Amino acid sequence: MVMVKAARPRVVIVGGGFAGIQCAEALASAAVDLTLIDRKNHHLFQPLLYQVATAALSPSQIAAPIREVLRGQRNCRVLMADVTGVDPEQREVRTDGAGVLAYDYLVLATGVSHSYFGNESWQAQAPGLKTLEDALDIRRRFLLCFELAERATDPAERAALLTFVVVGGGPTGVEMAGAMVEIALQTIRDEFRSIDTGQARVILVEAQPRVLAGFDPALSESAKRTLRAMGVDVRTNTRVTAIDGTGVMLTHAPEGDPGALAGGGAPVPSSEFIASRHVIWAAGVAASALGAMTGGATDRAGRVVVEPDLSVAGRKEVFVLGDMASVMDRNGLPVPGMAPGAMQMGRHAGATIARDARALDRGEALPARRAFRYVDKGQLATIGRARAVAHVFGRNVTGLPAWLLWAGVHVVYLIDFRSKVLVLMEWFFSYIFFRRGARLITGDARTAQLET
Amino acid sequence: MVMVKAARPRVVIVGGGFAGIQCAEALASAAVDLTLIDRKNHHLFQPLLYQVATAALSPSQIAAPIREVLRGQRNCRVLMADVTGVDPEQREVRTDGAGVLAYDYLVLATGVSHSYFGNESWQAQAPGLKTLEDALDIRRRFLLCFELAERATDPAERAALLTFVVVGGGPTGVEMAGAMVEIALQTIRDEFRSIDTGQARVILVEAQPRVLAGFDPALSESAKRTLRAMGVDVRTNTRVTAIDGTGVMLTHAPEGDPGALAGGGAPVPSSEFIASRHVIWAAGVAASALGAMTGGATDRAGRVVVEPDLSVAGRKEVFVLGDMASVMDRNGLPVPGMAPGAMQMGRHAGATIARDARALDRGEALPARRAFRYVDKGQLATIGRARAVAHVFGRNVTGLPAWLLWAGVHVVYLIDFRSKVLVLMEWFFSYIFFRRGARLITGDARTAQLET
Repeated sequence: MVMVKAARPRVVIVGGGFAGIQCAEALASAAVDLTLIDRKNHHLFQPLLYQVATAALSPSQIAAPIREVLRGQRNCRVLMADVTGVDPEQREVRTDGAGVLAYDYLVLATGVSHSYFGNESWQAQAPGLKTLEDALDIRRRFLLCFELAERATDPAERAALLTFVVVGGGPTGVEMAGAMVEIALQTIRDEFRSIDTGQARVILVEAQPRVLAGFDPALSESAKRTLRAMGVDVRTNTRVTAIDGTGVMLTHAPEGDPGALAGGGAPVPSSEFIASRHVIWAAGVAASALGAMTGGATDRAGRVVVEPDLSVAGRKEVFVLGDMASVMDRNGLPVPGMAPGAMQMGRHAGATIARDARALDRGEALPARRAFRYVDKGQLATIGRARAVAHVFGRNVTGLPAWLLWAGVHVVYLIDFRSKVLVLMEWFFSYIFFRRGARLITGDARTAQLET
Repeated sequence: MVMVKAARPRVVIVGGGFAGIQCAEALASAAVDLTLIDRKNHHLFQPLLYQVATAALSPSQIAAPIREVLRGQRNCRVLMADVTGVDPEQREVRTDGAGVLAYDYLVLATGVSHSYFGNESWQAQAPGLKTLEDALDIRRRFLLCFELAERATDPAERAALLTFVVVGGGPTGVEMAGAMVEIALQTIRDEFRSIDTGQARVILVEAQPRVLAGFDPALSESAKRTLRAMGVDVRTNTRVTAIDGTGVMLTHAPEGDPGALAGGGAPVPSSEFIASRHVIWAAGVAASALGAMTGGATDRAGRVVVEPDLSVAGRKEVFVLGDMASVMDRNGLPVPGMAPGAMQMGRHAGATIARDARALDRGEALPARRAFRYVDKGQLATIGRARAVAHVFGRNVTGLPAWLLWAGVHVVYLIDFRSKVLVLMEWFFSYIFFRRGARLITGDARTAQLET
């Protein structure tokens, strides 16, 4: 019997985030023809994106060209293109600009975008934070509010310009609110003559009874106390019911949060309009629409419910990873949509494909699939200068120790060496001098208005 | 006789560039009410702007908020607003957004913008380099050309995408061309699979017989030789006669440049069409239109021909500084439109107003005006990695010594300390590892096309 050696399998990875990059690197020595496609040219270190939005870091400090990250991997081609469709029957991916790519293995890891829960018109007034462009837009709007307030003559307009609303009390919302209040009350306070930026209000709105709902309740409580001590107006049990160019309508339903009612009044929902010119959306996400094209079942947020090996049911050659995938850990709880889970999934899928490729190369039967196991390394959220909360090795940590842990972990994970050094330098300067290094308002000068 | 003490004079400075900032700082201890207006929130270290355009530095490394620069100066208010007009009779400045400002002294220092010599339609195809937005746009287009070439299937299109034309052989054009060829031939060469970026062409077009026409002819010759050795196609005595989305029409008129004609053919003008998708305009400038509103005489480029004290003829309370002003040095030659001249003018005008303010404060007669004297500190232009040309203390310097001089001078002049350290770090990494730290394509993904 003559064994016909198979051609190298064609692997297409869509998305150069944590899952996609880790998957590609896990295939570095595999006998595959690998193509990684992303609509951007850069891998983004998303956990530090809020630092770009709040003017502490520059885009290039938290992002690196995908082709630079993978430059040494000769079996990998990087393409910058928009993937517009997946045909799992024909095993093809359609792109805008790079034609149709046939695959033997497909890895989808294109993440999530914002969801406004059916109120998509809010997007124009309340941008979210997923891309570098989002971060630069938020930075521009935030800094511009102070500039416009400095030259405003109407006190009501001035107050609205100095009122900032962050919708969503998850890690991103907590980080944003903490950083914004630090900037207003400390960083820029000496630089204005007509306004006192210390009068600025930062309101953090969370529909659940506590911020950081995915964390231990004691850490949520610590985060709330810390935020309030810093000057953030934290509103839990509060929903946003309208957003427009003039402000935000909040509805408070205080059940289950007696502490929010000073004096212990009756728990009736009440509405309040907050005049604001700058609202940040850190509330909902929806998975990339590509997942549904695989034919796999999806959950309410559009995530693909994958098999234990992270493949799509009935399609062992298609993997869905990271924020796009609905995956449970050993306790039956969803794997959180954070970098560690995405990286672990990327390595798992990469190793699975590499084992298949080895078997194909040797003419052997494909090996049995191994189940993905999420290793929980703990939880971390930063709040401000030397303030954070963490849950590691089964213990809660707060304050400076948690912040040092947070800073260390994030620097270690920053992909390339140069960034590590420079980010450390920036932080050193920021924290020593209470300054922020990237307070630039860029964009077309003539359109540098909040209205755009 | 009763002396009535005058109110503090109101000084309005328009423009937060080198001249405006230096003028404001020279008034730090003067008894004046100072307002500095700029349409941007940041002071820009323009001599390093090409490094942002060529992905070596980040915007925040060469720019700082104007109000941060002047934060300690209590007599100075900073306004971000567009100045739309000057009324020298009423002594008023009109703004878009900050109302009308009355002044006792007015300082105009709003610089220059690009001039396409009547071919303003070229601007869309051939962006110039004056603002951070310009630099990011050029960076985006340049990096995108390689991405599009990597996925292109038509060899002619691929070649056009890898052909870059820089129009104008002054310092900016020389610096851009040198950096672009270094990126193509060194930085990114290992990162592509379908194209060899070493095949990229960078063409530097100069209408005059030599590049760096303002420099000593020996330095021009050295720069041309260096550029050619690096791989730049230098075309002197060559004019651009058309630019559109497909490329550039060049007309060569070789008189006076026999070296350009290999083999010594007859000196007839000849035309050549260069297919290119990325053209950079580093040729002409036109002074800000505000200068003409002062009523002062203007030269061909729109610069205001100022009095020896830098004031406008007949208006001792109005000063025009920097690139907007036509000023001669002691030898009757125009002061070059570079940072040192602008800074010196700013200090001179600031000192003049401060002397007036002191006299007013004491109820004395205004002092006689002193003439501005330009101190020539020499000339510097960088070409590439460890390559530059300089003229200092009457001597020509080239190669590594000139480059070290260039790097040192620029770091010393970078306004704030943090930037100095970080820029040095970036350079260190760039020059050691042949890398560039800011190779990001940003902008709306869907519009991330060259056509936009």
